Amino acid sequence: MHDMKALLTDLYELTMAAGYWQAGKSAERATFELSIRRLPANRSYLLATGLEEALAYLLDLAFNPPEIDYLRSQPVFSQVSPGFWDYLSRFRFTGDVWAVGEGTPVFAGEPLLRISGPLPEAQIAETYLLSTITFQTLIATKAARIVEAAAGRGVVEFGTRRAHTPQAGVLGARAAYIGGCMGTSNVEAGYRFGIPVYGTAAHSWTQAFDSEPEAFCRLQQLLGDRTIYLLDTYDVEAGARNAAAVGQPFLGVRLDSGDLEAQSRLVRRILDDAGYREARIMASGDLNEQRIAALVRAGAPIDWFGAGTELATSADAPHLASIYKLVEIERGGQPRPTAKRSADKPSWPGIKQVFRGPGYDIVGLECESFAGAAPLLEPVVERGRRVAEPPALSQIRGRARAQLAELPAACRRLENPEPYPVRYSEKLQALCAQLGASR
Amino acid sequence: MHDMKALLTDLYELTMAAGYWQAGKSAERATFELSIRRLPANRSYLLATGLEEALAYLLDLAFNPPEIDYLRSQPVFSQVSPGFWDYLSRFRFTGDVWAVGEGTPVFAGEPLLRISGPLPEAQIAETYLLSTITFQTLIATKAARIVEAAAGRGVVEFGTRRAHTPQAGVLGARAAYIGGCMGTSNVEAGYRFGIPVYGTAAHSWTQAFDSEPEAFCRLQQLLGDRTIYLLDTYDVEAGARNAAAVGQPFLGVRLDSGDLEAQSRLVRRILDDAGYREARIMASGDLNEQRIAALVRAGAPIDWFGAGTELATSADAPHLASIYKLVEIERGGQPRPTAKRSADKPSWPGIKQVFRGPGYDIVGLECESFAGAAPLLEPVVERGRRVAEPPALSQIRGRARAQLAELPAACRRLENPEPYPVRYSEKLQALCAQLGASR
Repeated sequence: MHDMKALLTDLYELTMAAGYWQAGKSAERATFELSIRRLPANRSYLLATGLEEALAYLLDLAFNPPEIDYLRSQPVFSQVSPGFWDYLSRFRFTGDVWAVGEGTPVFAGEPLLRISGPLPEAQIAETYLLSTITFQTLIATKAARIVEAAAGRGVVEFGTRRAHTPQAGVLGARAAYIGGCMGTSNVEAGYRFGIPVYGTAAHSWTQAFDSEPEAFCRLQQLLGDRTIYLLDTYDVEAGARNAAAVGQPFLGVRLDSGDLEAQSRLVRRILDDAGYREARIMASGDLNEQRIAALVRAGAPIDWFGAGTELATSADAPHLASIYKLVEIERGGQPRPTAKRSADKPSWPGIKQVFRGPGYDIVGLECESFAGAAPLLEPVVERGRRVAEPPALSQIRGRARAQLAELPAACRRLENPEPYPVRYSEKLQALCAQLGASR
Repeated sequence: MHDMKALLTDLYELTMAAGYWQAGKSAERATFELSIRRLPANRSYLLATGLEEALAYLLDLAFNPPEIDYLRSQPVFSQVSPGFWDYLSRFRFTGDVWAVGEGTPVFAGEPLLRISGPLPEAQIAETYLLSTITFQTLIATKAARIVEAAAGRGVVEFGTRRAHTPQAGVLGARAAYIGGCMGTSNVEAGYRFGIPVYGTAAHSWTQAFDSEPEAFCRLQQLLGDRTIYLLDTYDVEAGARNAAAVGQPFLGVRLDSGDLEAQSRLVRRILDDAGYREARIMASGDLNEQRIAALVRAGAPIDWFGAGTELATSADAPHLASIYKLVEIERGGQPRPTAKRSADKPSWPGIKQVFRGPGYDIVGLECESFAGAAPLLEPVVERGRRVAEPPALSQIRGRARAQLAELPAACRRLENPEPYPVRYSEKLQALCAQLGASR
């Protein structure tokens, strides 16, 4: 993968940047807000995630000479005056960012991120910020649902092989950890973020030896009491007996196919009878929050769940209606609120803040305040520099856990959850009406 | 994004590699095959894509000292003898790869890729290969469906902002181009792969000026006759009149919300009446193959479609049941076919080949041949080196187009397509029965 990120964007961000520059608007201050227009089915909250990667992009953003040469060669830029390329070669993000902290539950219509700065700088960031924040928020939210379903049993994220590229697997693993998973199988996520990594052996391991007993003995020699035996290469019952027959302490066993409830009961009995009462049972194989909840309800003796494909792709809701909208723009030296007013996709004008009270949110204008409700968006970048050190991942994960626990259970319900009460302030509604009427 | 890819894998690939090494099996030759176990709803073919990225990974794969230090620090490796780390520091892929060419239609159960080499080398590649090939195949297939629905009208891929990371947007754009899209909005995909890039302006452009007429004039000054005006920032009808009122030649207009059929008719009339009969109408906004087919059936005067979210995430089928299975392993110096035999997820043993005849496929053993049917898997890497130059992207795209056209229309139908006839050879079935019976 090419190392630079400047061209990881939609072409129109760059044609617009050229146009703003050409129209003498490259120093005009603009504010964009990133929000999720509406939530997918069976979601009444989202876990905001992706800020760190978004800021890393923003603060690193620069165009190198081969990238600029490529752009200059595109017919769409043929009428751009050469000064724009000088501008682009010196381009850095010099604006401000306000954001909701990673791991915070948020709701439809609430800005998660607000970028203010010279118009082209705030514009160019749109595509990358939308993509990375939408995806990571999607996965953190899916993980929170799966962890909720597991009701205290551990969940390990296993989905890199089905993630939308291995690179998505890494950021997805981080998001899943924030959402409450105990760790991941993705080694790069462990290396980069310090997330606990898990994994012992696949079916191929068992096949690679002359017999399952030999394969299990060899695994035990490698991993000692950390061994988890995968039981379903040939036959689960025989697999469980072979695991016990190794005769050494081991951490557990994994089931990866078939009727997980029946198999877990069978295997539990075999392990208990052989004196391995402490050995854990892990289950995997196309698990999602519904299937995990059903296994938990049935009392299946499963200690850990491995969640792969469904988690790594947020399979029931693989995208979010994320938007990045211009809400304020300088005109004649004065900041003016603005909004798109298409019939079915309007947006809210003005620089906004989310005020979180006990059991409700208010989306209002930045200048407002509400007794008992604290502002959620905080400054993270000022004039192109980070305001503070990024929080530790453990802190983000702890915040998610604590704040999710405060949501009403009806909001966290896996199916048909109740919407969380979010209202728009009177001032914001008045501004919106005024802008609509003024056209 | 960290530049190296060696840790973009599941931990168990590396624990198994350590175990194979420790068990003296690191020189034993093994063969794995990558296939798709079953197809998602409404798919009866897939467009194999991702081979180039897969080979780039495989031929580059190496572990650097900080990566090895990280692995050594993991408790799961605490019993591994130090020689393994020397082995890993010298690790390169030295095996062979056979593959179906990118842009080839394939069916459930057919190997797309076959890796033969020393056991740990072929094992370690599993996670990355599955992820990148599954994802790209998913998107190329979704693109082919959307292009089919567009029935000759152009389709541009617009989905990076909703792709599962911007990096997935790049590889997705390439896959969509192979699947028949005319280009992408993703600039990096243009830069890296030479794919045509498209894009003019967003709603924020229109909002950033004092009025829509001013915004349109400025856009025309920037883009000349390549201008595409976005009409739905405030009101589509007024937008169309404002576009015509600029009074200069332009390429077209874009509609991004509302009733696209009604709007396209209204806008066509306004443009025609103003003498802009050549101006194209582009439509976008949550389009998928069903919505595009409905617009085409209704005769909406739309020339180009922009497909974003639904394409970039393959929203109706965001994952494939891809597997990477050990099919042959050396035992006592002799190659021996092997398979996993779990009750509900069995796999087919032996080194296989896909034989493509006119109107049917046969999955058989590599050593077989069938009159009138040509082998689909070809050698692409021998002893760690590419056999030939990679085909040009235009050639891959042309292959996809030609071979899709040869599929029966009933197989390409958007809903409830007929399965393509694929049979398993008698020798393969016999081998499978023999292995099953021999346990």
